[in-house]
Amino acid sequence: MIRVTAWNEFRHEKTDAKVKAVYPTGIHQCLADFLNRQDGIKARIASLDDPEHGLTDAVLDETDVLTWWGHAAHHEVRDEIVNKVAQRVHEGMGLICLHSAHVSKIFRKLTGSTGSLCWREANEKERLWIIEPSHPIAQGLPARFFEIEHDEMYGERFDIPTPDKLVFITWFPGGEVFRSGCCFERGHGRIFYFQPGHETFPVYYDRNVQTVIANAVRWAAPRGRHKLECPMVKELEPLPGR
Amino acid sequence: MIRVTAWNEFRHEKTDAKVKAVYPTGIHQCLADFLNRQDGIKARIASLDDPEHGLTDAVLDETDVLTWWGHAAHHEVRDEIVNKVAQRVHEGMGLICLHSAHVSKIFRKLTGSTGSLCWREANEKERLWIIEPSHPIAQGLPARFFEIEHDEMYGERFDIPTPDKLVFITWFPGGEVFRSGCCFERGHGRIFYFQPGHETFPVYYDRNVQTVIANAVRWAAPRGRHKLECPMVKELEPLPGR
Amino acid sequence: MIRVTAWNEFRHEKTDAKVKAVYPTGIHQCLADFLNRQDGIKARIASLDDPEHGLTDAVLDETDVLTWWGHAAHHEVRDEIVNKVAQRVHEGMGLICLHSAHVSKIFRKLTGSTGSLCWREANEKERLWIIEPSHPIAQGLPARFFEIEHDEMYGERFDIPTPDKLVFITWFPGGEVFRSGCCFERGHGRIFYFQPGHETFPVYYDRNVQTVIANAVRWAAPRGRHKLECPMVKELEPLPGR
Amino acid sequence: MIRVTAWNEFRHEKTDAKVKAVYPTGIHQCLADFLNRQDGIKARIASLDDPEHGLTDAVLDETDVLTWWGHAAHHEVRDEIVNKVAQRVHEGMGLICLHSAHVSKIFRKLTGSTGSLCWREANEKERLWIIEPSHPIAQGLPARFFEIEHDEMYGERFDIPTPDKLVFITWFPGGEVFRSGCCFERGHGRIFYFQPGHETFPVYYDRNVQTVIANAVRWAAPRGRHKLECPMVKELEPLPGR
Repeated sequence: MIRVTAWNEFRHEKTDAKVKAVYPTGIHQCLADFLNRQDGIKARIASLDDPEHGLTDAVLDETDVLTWWGHAAHHEVRDEIVNKVAQRVHEGMGLICLHSAHVSKIFRKLTGSTGSLCWREANEKERLWIIEPSHPIAQGLPARFFEIEHDEMYGERFDIPTPDKLVFITWFPGGEVFRSGCCFERGHGRIFYFQPGHETFPVYYDRNVQTVIANAVRWAAPRGRHKLECPMVKELEPLPGR
Repeated sequence: MIRVTAWNEFRHEKTDAKVKAVYPTGIHQCLADFLNRQDGIKARIASLDDPEHGLTDAVLDETDVLTWWGHAAHHEVRDEIVNKVAQRVHEGMGLICLHSAHVSKIFRKLTGSTGSLCWREANEKERLWIIEPSHPIAQGLPARFFEIEHDEMYGERFDIPTPDKLVFITWFPGGEVFRSGCCFERGHGRIFYFQPGHETFPVYYDRNVQTVIANAVRWAAPRGRHKLECPMVKELEPLPGR
Repeated sequence: MIRVTAWNEFRHEKTDAKVKAVYPTGIHQCLADFLNRQDGIKARIASLDDPEHGLTDAVLDETDVLTWWGHAAHHEVRDEIVNKVAQRVHEGMGLICLHSAHVSKIFRKLTGSTGSLCWREANEKERLWIIEPSHPIAQGLPARFFEIEHDEMYGERFDIPTPDKLVFITWFPGGEVFRSGCCFERGHGRIFYFQPGHETFPVYYDRNVQTVIANAVRWAAPRGRHKLECPMVKELEPLPGR
Repeated sequence: MIRVTAWNEFRHEKTDAKVKAVYPTGIHQCLADFLNRQDGIKARIASLDDPEHGLTDAVLDETDVLTWWGHAAHHEVRDEIVNKVAQRVHEGMGLICLHSAHVSKIFRKLTGSTGSLCWREANEKERLWIIEPSHPIAQGLPARFFEIEHDEMYGERFDIPTPDKLVFITWFPGGEVFRSGCCFERGHGRIFYFQPGHETFPVYYDRNVQTVIANAVRWAAPRGRHKLECPMVKELEPLPGR
C-alpha cells in the first residue's frame, strides 16, 4: 500500500467563488479522492493552514509520496517545514510537484533552480505529447498525446536542471511549448513535476491527468529509506607500507 | 579575460601550523597565484572573515567564475550571501567547488542534495581516472590517469544528482572509489565539483590539479548573463475563436 | 511472468576444461537455472551454434528480456540476427549485456559506441560500489558494496555513451576503477550492462550477482510493445490561412 | 582553423526543378559558402555520387567536422563508408546531422536508435524555442525563439536516446512539437542533430539557421584525436599476496 499525502495551499478555494465551484472541498481532496480509488494507494490530505502545515513528523512518517499544489502563498510555507520535507525526500519519500509548484520553496530547494517560466491565462487548450511512451508514468494513456480543453499556458524557457527523463512536452495554440512532465532524483527520492492544473479549471477531474498522477505516485514510491550522513570509515584494504 | 574570485574559509591556515606551513598565505592565494599565471585569467581572493565574506555586489559584479574552498565553518557562511551567490550562478556565473565544499551551503543549495559521502584521513595516494578524455576539463592531462601522493580519502556513495558529465573517478588504495570530477548546470551557470585538496597536503601546488582547475574555470566562464523571472506573455499566434 | 532467454556463445565450455568444470552445462544454463528459481520469471536458453543462433522469430516473440554472454566469437554472430535483436529492443524487449558482451555486435549497435576498455587477467578481487542504492537494480544487496573474490579486471576508460544511470562502480586492487553497472534506453527497450563474469570463475553462482541480474530482468521487462516507423500525419490544428 | 566537409546526397537538386531553383549548386555548397564566411572555419564539399561518396581517407584526415544532409538515398550510402565515418566520430570528429538525416545510416548507427518520427509537408511555419540559452550552440540568436516561415513538419515521438542536452524544441502551428536541437557524444566525438532544412525551402539561407550551424561546428570541433582499442594492461598496484 502506497501512502500518499496530498498537500494543498487551499486558499483560492476559500476566497474565490469560481475556484470553489470547481473544487468545493479543495484540490487536495479531489486528488486524494481519485487516488483512493486506485488499487494499492491510500491518500490523505494536508494544507497550509493546518498546524505545521499538516506536515508533522507523525504525518511524514506515514507518507510514502507527497503531492504538492501551491500558488499564491509559497512564501508563507515555513522554511523549517520545507527543510523537513526535503530531508524526507533525500531519505526516499517521493514528491509530485503540480502546476504552480514550479516556484514552490520545496521544488526550488530540491532542483537548485529558480523554476522560472513564462505564462498566460487565456484558457487555452493544451496538448501533451508523450515523449517517452514506455516510461512508467506514461502507461495507460492514449497513443501519441492527450489534450486538456482549458488551462493556463506555461512556456519555455523553464528554468530547471536537465531532467533525468522528459516524459511530456505540451503544445499550446498560442504558440508555446513546455517541458511538462519531468523526472528528477535527489538523494534516495524521486521527484516528478507535472504542469497541468490551473485552479479555475477542472483539470484534476480529467481521466488522463488522473492516470498520470497515479502512475507518478507508483513510480515515486520509495524503495527503502536511507539516512544520509558523512561517516568516517576505516580502510578496507591494507594501505601500502603499514 | 576571465575574472576569477578564489574564495576560502581561511581558518585552518591561521590556527593550524601544519596547514600554515603548506599554505602560508592561504589556499585562496595559492589558487589565485597559479590562475594568474594562466593566459586569459585574472584572479583575486576573498574569504569568510572579510566584510560580507568578501562577496559584495561590487566583487560579484566583477566575477565570472567563483572558486569555493570551505571545511570547518560552512555554518558560518551567512544565508543571504549564499542566496546572492546562487542567484549569480543562476544568471550565468561559474562555480568551482573544491574538496570539502561538497557540504558547503552553496553546493547543497545548487545541487538540491546533501553532498554526503564517506571519508578517512590516512594520507592515501589517490589516482584520478579520466573518464571523459575529450571533455574540456580533461585537456592537457597525462593519458588515462594522474596521481596525487597524499590526500584525504572521499568515498561513495556521494549524494549528488546524476552529473551531466562525470569527468573523473578516483581510486584509493584503501579500497574506495569516488566520482571526483562532476559537471552540473543550474540556471545559466556551470558548476564543477573537484575532490582533491585536503588542507594539510600541498595538493593545489600539483601541476595536474592546477591544469584541471584552470580548465574548469574556462569551461565555467559565462556565455552571457541572463535574468530569471516569470514573465506574463501574450499569445504569439491567434487563439481559435478570437 | 517475465520470459527470459539466456543467450550464450557457449564455446569455452566445450573446449576449455577449466571453464567446463565451472559451467558444465554452460553459462546460459547457470543463468536460466537461478532465474527460474525467482518468482515471476521463466527462463530458457539459446546459443550461437543453434540454428539462427537460437533466436528465431518464434523465440523472440516469446522473449521479454534477453541476456547476452559472448567473448571469443562475437564476429560469428550474423548481422541479420543482430539487426533482428536490435529491432526487438527498439520495440520494447529488455537486454542484459554481461561481461565481455561490452564488445558484442548487439551492444555496440545499440549504444553506438565501441565498448573499448582496458583489461587484465589476474584473478583479482573486485569490489562493486553501489552508486545508486535506491535504483531497482540495487535492491536486496549488502549496504555500500559487495565483492567477488576472483574475476578479470576491466578498467576505464570504458567507451560508452553517458549512461542514463550509473548503478555500480568497481574497484580493483591492481589500481583500476570501472563503471560496472550501466543503464541505457533505446527505442522502447531498456538495456543494462553488468561487468562481472569471466568464464573461468564461478561468478554467476554468486548470490549478489544473481540478485543484480534478477533485478535487472525485472527492471528491463517491457512495458508494452511499440512499432517504430515514420508516419505521415495530417495537421491536428487548422493551419493559418486554410 | 576548423576544417568542415559539407556532405550532401545531392540528388534532389539535379532532378527537381523546384529544389534546383532554391539550391542551384546544392545544399552542401550553400552550407560551405556561409561557413566559409565565418572566422576560423574552412569548408569543402562532398556528395553521394563522388567516388567513395567523396569521403576518402584523405578527405576525412582533413575533416574536423562533417555535416550530413541526405533524404531519398540513405540506402545507397555504402556500409563501409558509414563504418569509416563512425570510426572517425569515435576518434573525435564532429558530426552535424541535418533535417532528414534523422534516418541516415550514420545517425542511426551512432545513436543506436531508429530516428523515427512523424512528418507532414504542409509548408508550415516553425518556431524554435531556445531551451538552453547558455549553450554554445544557442549564442547569437534572438531572445527566447526564432522562426522559419516555411518548412516540413517533424513531430514527436522522435526515437532517439535521451540527448545529453536538448537545445531547441520546435512548435508547429498544425499542433506538433519536436526536439529539434539535440546534443550527443559517442567515443570522443560530438554529434548535433538539427531539424530545419526541407529541400524545397531556402532554410539554409536563413541567418539564424546559419548561426546555429556555425555554432554547432565550433562546439563539435575535436579536442584531440584518440584511438579506441581494448589494451591488455599490467597492474598498477601490487596485488595482495604476490
